[in-house]
Amino acid sequence: MNKIRSLWSGGGHAVLGWLQIPAALHAEALARCGYDGLVVDLQHSPTDFATAVAMMTAIEAGGSEPFVRVATNDASDIMKLLDCGAYGVICPMIDTAAQARSFASALHYPPRGTRSFGPRRPLLRYGPDYPRIASETIVALAMIETATALQNLAEILAVDGIDGVFIGPADLALALGAAPQADSTDPRVVAAVRTIRLSAHAHGKRVGIFCAGADFARDKLEEGFDLVSITPDLAMLTHMARTSLEQVRQGARRETPSGGNDNRAGGG
Amino acid sequence: MNKIRSLWSGGGHAVLGWLQIPAALHAEALARCGYDGLVVDLQHSPTDFATAVAMMTAIEAGGSEPFVRVATNDASDIMKLLDCGAYGVICPMIDTAAQARSFASALHYPPRGTRSFGPRRPLLRYGPDYPRIASETIVALAMIETATALQNLAEILAVDGIDGVFIGPADLALALGAAPQADSTDPRVVAAVRTIRLSAHAHGKRVGIFCAGADFARDKLEEGFDLVSITPDLAMLTHMARTSLEQVRQGARRETPSGGNDNRAGGG
Amino acid sequence: MNKIRSLWSGGGHAVLGWLQIPAALHAEALARCGYDGLVVDLQHSPTDFATAVAMMTAIEAGGSEPFVRVATNDASDIMKLLDCGAYGVICPMIDTAAQARSFASALHYPPRGTRSFGPRRPLLRYGPDYPRIASETIVALAMIETATALQNLAEILAVDGIDGVFIGPADLALALGAAPQADSTDPRVVAAVRTIRLSAHAHGKRVGIFCAGADFARDKLEEGFDLVSITPDLAMLTHMARTSLEQVRQGARRETPSGGNDNRAGGG
Amino acid sequence: MNKIRSLWSGGGHAVLGWLQIPAALHAEALARCGYDGLVVDLQHSPTDFATAVAMMTAIEAGGSEPFVRVATNDASDIMKLLDCGAYGVICPMIDTAAQARSFASALHYPPRGTRSFGPRRPLLRYGPDYPRIASETIVALAMIETATALQNLAEILAVDGIDGVFIGPADLALALGAAPQADSTDPRVVAAVRTIRLSAHAHGKRVGIFCAGADFARDKLEEGFDLVSITPDLAMLTHMARTSLEQVRQGARRETPSGGNDNRAGGG
Amino acid sequence: MNKIRSLWSGGGHAVLGWLQIPAALHAEALARCGYDGLVVDLQHSPTDFATAVAMMTAIEAGGSEPFVRVATNDASDIMKLLDCGAYGVICPMIDTAAQARSFASALHYPPRGTRSFGPRRPLLRYGPDYPRIASETIVALAMIETATALQNLAEILAVDGIDGVFIGPADLALALGAAPQADSTDPRVVAAVRTIRLSAHAHGKRVGIFCAGADFARDKLEEGFDLVSITPDLAMLTHMARTSLEQVRQGARRETPSGGNDNRAGGG
Amino acid sequence: MNKIRSLWSGGGHAVLGWLQIPAALHAEALARCGYDGLVVDLQHSPTDFATAVAMMTAIEAGGSEPFVRVATNDASDIMKLLDCGAYGVICPMIDTAAQARSFASALHYPPRGTRSFGPRRPLLRYGPDYPRIASETIVALAMIETATALQNLAEILAVDGIDGVFIGPADLALALGAAPQADSTDPRVVAAVRTIRLSAHAHGKRVGIFCAGADFARDKLEEGFDLVSITPDLAMLTHMARTSLEQVRQGARRETPSGGNDNRAGGG
Repeated sequence: MNKIRSLWSGGGHAVLGWLQIPAALHAEALARCGYDGLVVDLQHSPTDFATAVAMMTAIEAGGSEPFVRVATNDASDIMKLLDCGAYGVICPMIDTAAQARSFASALHYPPRGTRSFGPRRPLLRYGPDYPRIASETIVALAMIETATALQNLAEILAVDGIDGVFIGPADLALALGAAPQADSTDPRVVAAVRTIRLSAHAHGKRVGIFCAGADFARDKLEEGFDLVSITPDLAMLTHMARTSLEQVRQGARRETPSGGNDNRAGGG
Repeated sequence: MNKIRSLWSGGGHAVLGWLQIPAALHAEALARCGYDGLVVDLQHSPTDFATAVAMMTAIEAGGSEPFVRVATNDASDIMKLLDCGAYGVICPMIDTAAQARSFASALHYPPRGTRSFGPRRPLLRYGPDYPRIASETIVALAMIETATALQNLAEILAVDGIDGVFIGPADLALALGAAPQADSTDPRVVAAVRTIRLSAHAHGKRVGIFCAGADFARDKLEEGFDLVSITPDLAMLTHMARTSLEQVRQGARRETPSGGNDNRAGGG
Repeated sequence: MNKIRSLWSGGGHAVLGWLQIPAALHAEALARCGYDGLVVDLQHSPTDFATAVAMMTAIEAGGSEPFVRVATNDASDIMKLLDCGAYGVICPMIDTAAQARSFASALHYPPRGTRSFGPRRPLLRYGPDYPRIASETIVALAMIETATALQNLAEILAVDGIDGVFIGPADLALALGAAPQADSTDPRVVAAVRTIRLSAHAHGKRVGIFCAGADFARDKLEEGFDLVSITPDLAMLTHMARTSLEQVRQGARRETPSGGNDNRAGGG
Repeated sequence: MNKIRSLWSGGGHAVLGWLQIPAALHAEALARCGYDGLVVDLQHSPTDFATAVAMMTAIEAGGSEPFVRVATNDASDIMKLLDCGAYGVICPMIDTAAQARSFASALHYPPRGTRSFGPRRPLLRYGPDYPRIASETIVALAMIETATALQNLAEILAVDGIDGVFIGPADLALALGAAPQADSTDPRVVAAVRTIRLSAHAHGKRVGIFCAGADFARDKLEEGFDLVSITPDLAMLTHMARTSLEQVRQGARRETPSGGNDNRAGGG
Repeated sequence: MNKIRSLWSGGGHAVLGWLQIPAALHAEALARCGYDGLVVDLQHSPTDFATAVAMMTAIEAGGSEPFVRVATNDASDIMKLLDCGAYGVICPMIDTAAQARSFASALHYPPRGTRSFGPRRPLLRYGPDYPRIASETIVALAMIETATALQNLAEILAVDGIDGVFIGPADLALALGAAPQADSTDPRVVAAVRTIRLSAHAHGKRVGIFCAGADFARDKLEEGFDLVSITPDLAMLTHMARTSLEQVRQGARRETPSGGNDNRAGGG
Repeated sequence: MNKIRSLWSGGGHAVLGWLQIPAALHAEALARCGYDGLVVDLQHSPTDFATAVAMMTAIEAGGSEPFVRVATNDASDIMKLLDCGAYGVICPMIDTAAQARSFASALHYPPRGTRSFGPRRPLLRYGPDYPRIASETIVALAMIETATALQNLAEILAVDGIDGVFIGPADLALALGAAPQADSTDPRVVAAVRTIRLSAHAHGKRVGIFCAGADFARDKLEEGFDLVSITPDLAMLTHMARTSLEQVRQGARRETPSGGNDNRAGGG
């Protein structure tokens, strides 16, 4: 069964990483760092489908659950990613219940949905029993991030076949007239995030949110969110690069990696 | 003129980043973070030549100087990388003056060396004047990281056509019977590092060292090193991932990226 | 600000190159030849998304403005290309004002449009101020190339959020019963091209056209076109290859590249 | 039998194209333009092995003979390229008879040479009879482009198993103290080129030369050269781009591609 | 003319191979094994567009007709694949006559359809006459594999511009409540397959079916099918691998490849 | 510990698959079919380094041991492949004890060898303890396939740091004047194969052989070989394709894959 689904069944929550850099090496390395799942972002990154497949293979090899954030609610794209080893799907810009139903339909085989049969890589992982259990191996979240989605929230949450919703905070902020950023403290955004969480749980659905910082993410989990994603790979790198360069050049000392027998020792 | 060469001419030192992840996105992003140069590692990483070219293009677009650490002292590999936009070359496992002379020869056009003519991308950056100034645009460092190299250090440092030496601390440690790690405090390694630095400067050559942590790197610059490389991309990611996951799950609060209008806001 | 937009603001016109060959090397080289922008064709070429990103990076590095001709009017494709560094978008087969509005919507952040937030590479070029100025950095042109589009021309030109229209002459010719070719002298095509130009300017919009030959392009600029694209890379190559082979084999002498210190000297 | 070998057997000469841009599309298109062979340059270009295989497949599909200019005289690289469909091999920087013998050895199966058996793609083209006829399907040329090579010319030309020599004019010019360029009129280069041609023919070997311009190439064929390569793809593009841009902007009219039903009509 | 179309014109049927593994080598090798066409599966495989182009080039080089099974009925995807050398298109999940008309429209130039002009690779194969003969060079089949499609079968078969229909047996089985498998003996599937075949022929259309095994495929041809695809590459490999491993380990002897002078001799 | 090493420790033998097709999908699928290890052939195939890394990741994910057959005895290539996840290395054309010692040196860290430190992917699999156990995780075999190697067999087998030898039968046959094929029955080849096996065991070394057919491989295991590789992927495909096409067209019925709920059901 999907690791995130198992965590939820046990009353827990899930912490995901977020990958914008198109490469398998760090995907595999991060999969071994303790993330419950890792999201290959296909919407706002240069990652293409073929690289995503290599990354999902590496994430699975590393023992984490491979997720994708698809570029859009396109059934054939979603089905092809499922066939190639995505076990979590986050779909952006779900504005209406009809869109949510279309999304759900792509995730499940008939009669529940309209997924076409050809699960190349899942057959390798789960064997010929896969068609029967496919729906149990997949977690699907619809992104709520527009004004229209807020209006249609209840109807979207009532759609069967999706596990819950995922908040895209930058787009949500833009939709509410605030600056496009994660971890927003704008009261309008804060209120909307709270509304979405409460509505999701009222409908018996899971709710997750994209976070930039770990403290913000921890707050969200304490508020009751079922899933958070934390700092994307690119932001981790540029943050730590700027910090380290300042440290080297200006001398503010702080904890950074030391040079053990592991991947810190890259210089040969 | 090469940025690192300019820094040195002005009495300064250089700080490089180190790239093991084969992708252009973070190379370009890190190039805009303030590194003087970024090293595409072709020895101990999955990065291949074609990806290295894309990374060097992105690094140059980002305003940093593209370096490579080649896999070995192979003249045709080095010349092809120069033709495709490497302006810094770090060559591993230079054990003898003969090897150093071979390395130097690949870097310079006749009569100084034996580089073959066909500088595809440098002609785009520097125009038809490039052949005349080529040697000025390139920085080259021979890695000192074996017992043999330590024995031959003076002869290696006497070789013309190379700017200096670069210490590979993990291999050097192994060579001295210590654990293979960067930022070593093993007295044998510390002594060898000091010897290499003093010898290089005595020969009028530059000296650099691979560092895992920023504090260690700062110490090395203060000791007089002309160049340091700091935490590789993969180590930055796994370090920060582990820290963030601990922070999310166990609640130790500390500074992490917040969600501004920049690449932290990856969730859409 | 977008280079093409600047040219237009200054009363000038723009000349674009057109790239069908999926490679970054010649994209960078051509970017340094003086084109105001270079169009990566994603409709009628083997170029895929990942190669397009590498090409756009190289074009930007070369100092020209990276354009794409997308395969179709798909909002998520357009947004992903903008996130990865397209600053000009030419959209084929715009037949109706509704399609034009959909195209425009993908280009602008709310409230002007529905673009989702995650501009990975533009944040590198423009910094955190990008969200505010994004619309100013992008030029967008709707292709007019069908009978339906001609019927709906005025309505399409009245759509806000698009800079103007771009004529696809081969499809336009087919639509009018003429042979599918660029630089057509078929009176029906000539008349339609004139009509589109005059209508665009009457609506205060820009108008561009795909040209095969430089003379034809010059004529169009003299007629008042705001933008032309000239001979695609593949056509330049096959034209010059045939000319050169004839010259070598049959002896008609004429000016061709001589062997200076530049990229003509490829043989090493 | 190899097309170039057939031309030579019939008393003719061969004209090759030269490919520095790593892509299969234009390789296939140029293969249909009339070149006897097309050289995938692996020395002074960003082209890597995998792209070279795709290019050689496209060249063969287009009806021309796929050549490679390898990066260096490395037996395993040469053998792998032969296994993947190279039928012409141009090897740079052959300075001595020993190097020439090593090159020759990689081209032929025992007992004539030491090529290892595993001709994946040649078996597809020639069938199981390939091992017997392999040597007849391959043309191999050693590049003469250094001062050392000029000294050892007779010994190199006496080596069995190579069809002849190929002049790299830019490196040869550098070696002679002249500017690194093709089509040189420097008397030292002109004299050396003449010497190489006469010596080759005196030894019963073929002789070719890299040319930048078609007129120069025609002169060389008239002088008796057996093979010329003419303007590389990148130089054709940048030459014609500059010419076309001047034509569009400054109005000097001249013949350029017009817009027929062929690949000139790229705008859709 | 398309090879499959020629076979049909001569009263014959066609046997296709099916490719799920994204690589050109085996595509070219299988193209020389005698398949009339080879289908690059873009729906249920990791193959992306760029790899598909390389595979289609290799298939054409190998003398077989390149087909694609597209991921969905998307006009721009279909047109781009045609521009890059697909001469057969199998489109999944055609449920209605409107969808079939949309599919047909993408295949033909105006006035018959709405295909946009820019046939890069077909112009290389067929020359400037291609626009006139394009429709004759392409075979197109709509997949019938859902309950809705069965209901609308007659209307779908009445659509002009498509050669016929192709049965997707696994999805069809799912639609009928049976297990998702090829070569099904479930009476409901058998009956539906028969109905589709008879209806297709009654409408003067061709009918094909995906088969897993050769015996089943032979039966279908004997029943009157115009086209079959047989065991996909991945299934051939895993079937033969399991058989061979059993044979090696448990000793059941049977015919397997012996080691002639061909591609069996891979070990060097 | 390496799976093959474990098998040998337990008195068993190992059966490897052989991969010439550059793709990860079938590598992962075959890894789940029961091969003890799968060899990515980098000598006689179009597979390049980057694809090999993706394949090794997929093989490891599939639970088999990733091997490479390197193109040549190049220390930096071998070390880079080890750093990226090769746990078996088969090195071609080992002719002398000196070459064998060089090969062995690349496999082991100092003081046993000269491997440079930077095991990116092994650190992910084995953790920071990897440096200590590295040699135990790797199996290395030197190929015996030339006349020179036969002469030097005893010296080669006496080299420490290599597990044993692997027979390349096609090259060995060529060396002995026989036709270049696997599974040869030529008495000279049979005798040499026997000699190598007996000598290896006399020196306490392992011995393996490349086989084309399963029956031949079984014979070899019964004779005492410690390792066999069986039919390469490409040969399996072309063999089964020809058999299936004959079966479909000429009606000889035999067992082939039927259409279960697994990867045979590729048609959707």
